[in-house]
Amino acid sequence: MQKIIYTNNLSDAIRKLVIEFEPSSVHIITDENVKRHVLPGLGLDYNVISVNSGDSNKNIDSLSKIWSGLTEQGATRKSLAINIGGGVVTDMGGFAAATFKRGIRFINAPTTLLSAVDASVGGKTGINFNGLKNEIGVFASANAVIISTIFFSSLPQQEILSGYAEMLKHGLLSSSEEYTELLSFDITKADFESLLPLLEKSVKVKERIVDEDPYEKGLRRALNLGHTAGHAFEGLALQKGLPIPHGYAVAYGILVEMILSHTLRSFPSQELYRYAAYLKAQGYGFPDISCSDYDTLLGFMRHDKKNDTLSEINFTLLSAPGKPLIDQSASDSEIIAALDIFRDLLH
Amino acid sequence: MQKIIYTNNLSDAIRKLVIEFEPSSVHIITDENVKRHVLPGLGLDYNVISVNSGDSNKNIDSLSKIWSGLTEQGATRKSLAINIGGGVVTDMGGFAAATFKRGIRFINAPTTLLSAVDASVGGKTGINFNGLKNEIGVFASANAVIISTIFFSSLPQQEILSGYAEMLKHGLLSSSEEYTELLSFDITKADFESLLPLLEKSVKVKERIVDEDPYEKGLRRALNLGHTAGHAFEGLALQKGLPIPHGYAVAYGILVEMILSHTLRSFPSQELYRYAAYLKAQGYGFPDISCSDYDTLLGFMRHDKKNDTLSEINFTLLSAPGKPLIDQSASDSEIIAALDIFRDLLH
Repeated sequence: MQKIIYTNNLSDAIRKLVIEFEPSSVHIITDENVKRHVLPGLGLDYNVISVNSGDSNKNIDSLSKIWSGLTEQGATRKSLAINIGGGVVTDMGGFAAATFKRGIRFINAPTTLLSAVDASVGGKTGINFNGLKNEIGVFASANAVIISTIFFSSLPQQEILSGYAEMLKHGLLSSSEEYTELLSFDITKADFESLLPLLEKSVKVKERIVDEDPYEKGLRRALNLGHTAGHAFEGLALQKGLPIPHGYAVAYGILVEMILSHTLRSFPSQELYRYAAYLKAQGYGFPDISCSDYDTLLGFMRHDKKNDTLSEINFTLLSAPGKPLIDQSASDSEIIAALDIFRDLLH
Repeated sequence: MQKIIYTNNLSDAIRKLVIEFEPSSVHIITDENVKRHVLPGLGLDYNVISVNSGDSNKNIDSLSKIWSGLTEQGATRKSLAINIGGGVVTDMGGFAAATFKRGIRFINAPTTLLSAVDASVGGKTGINFNGLKNEIGVFASANAVIISTIFFSSLPQQEILSGYAEMLKHGLLSSSEEYTELLSFDITKADFESLLPLLEKSVKVKERIVDEDPYEKGLRRALNLGHTAGHAFEGLALQKGLPIPHGYAVAYGILVEMILSHTLRSFPSQELYRYAAYLKAQGYGFPDISCSDYDTLLGFMRHDKKNDTLSEINFTLLSAPGKPLIDQSASDSEIIAALDIFRDLLH
């Protein structure tokens, strides 16, 4: 079980963990934005390794830069890495730590809602490779995760929407009540005090699932809800040179998979309208796709890690809110039909 | 516990494992030499990914090539990698498999004595980085290891000597009798039928130690005997552009650490002479070092993964054959004195 600390005194929590872990050295792994805007305010006196910001830099070059930084700063097997940043930093920093000298300890301190609710918890680490999302990585749990909302107020609205999509996903997996509570929250006017209890609930949904199935042999695949289609939207956008936030892609992916759930597993149609209306009201926009992109989208879905073979595309579907069904598949024509409906619903 | 199969019918053993594992696809990972000289004789009809041969290619470029190959050949999470080759192939192929889509299954089929007795068993995978040996990697056990002696008769003498050094190490860790039996074996006239029982005994020494301590928290460090000094010889030789076989470096490293054991832990002096005489008689030669290399050698030892801090250099020493002592340290001047004696004994 991962140690998850909820606090708004991040520096203090980090200092306490450093005392507890007695590392031979401490290395903050972060990105240029966080280094410039967040680190100075934390007043921590440790080594810093910084990579360029953004998902397009979650690659082997940045990974090599982190490994080199650890070597140059004299890290040993008893050292401690502290990943401070969004999902790119926690995923890549976690992978760098898990593979440096065959694994050193690391702490995640997410600075975005998305990484707090998703990336920083549950042990998935990795990088993109050859244009495929998280193609390379390992399962390695952070020795501790420190969740704090202090950074959220300075995040652009887009980042908040992005993270909230994963909270909607957790709500959908958990129960109709939790999901409905989330849909009644107006994040365009977010007050981070009132978001905190929702966030804790949301992280606990993920914790519960990951503890039962850490290596994704079964139940954990439920967390992939929205991600088969979502990763395809994300990959396509990247290919077009117009990247979209991960959470937006997931928000869209959830809708596509809700439509498939309706067609194939009797998911109630009114939920499609309720969800699409929420996305529109909150300003998630819609992805720039046309029929000519369908082949590319299907290609990305087919290469998704979640598929056991290349002949079937694996989805998590729902028979109702709170009732996920893992290891579902859909044919190309069913997916294409869902993409058509998706475009109608959002445009 | 790893499944270790001893057989001289490699193709048959591989085919049986493929039937047992039911992978979605099979990918042989190998090097150019093995691809040209060994694969055709095996008659296996699987995907092949081949990298350039040699330790200097155990790097991030070759690793990327393997990852790309797996992607291009359509590998999924249910695929199986089969590493056929020496330690470079089993270490790097194992790391590639352990990190591809956060880990796919893999089998090691070592083709050299060195990889049979050492690299293929025990779950250490990785690559060299920034000139440092195995700086990046993970612990990941092969799902099966197939040990066979069929390839050894075509190996150059140098490869046999290199592998035998690790057998000497296992003998030294195990008992005075096992060690003495190894010293009475003339590998320059090696008959691979009679080597086989010694090899099985040797692999079992490693298995026993690894099963007790898979993540090298304690006892397993005994297997580092000869490797702190050995890696330094290897690193220095690589830096000079005159690489030496890993096993030669270990053979030399064992002697340096025997000398330290004598100076610091009363290891009997006659064992130093007996061991040095064996190395000379079998043709291990001696490393090209002078006093002016000592600083570089100490630098390599200081950066070894086995050190918890940079201020101390960690060794496995011996109070006698069969009696290892882990987590020992020595000062720079003690190491320098040992290097002087080492040169006297071997030259």
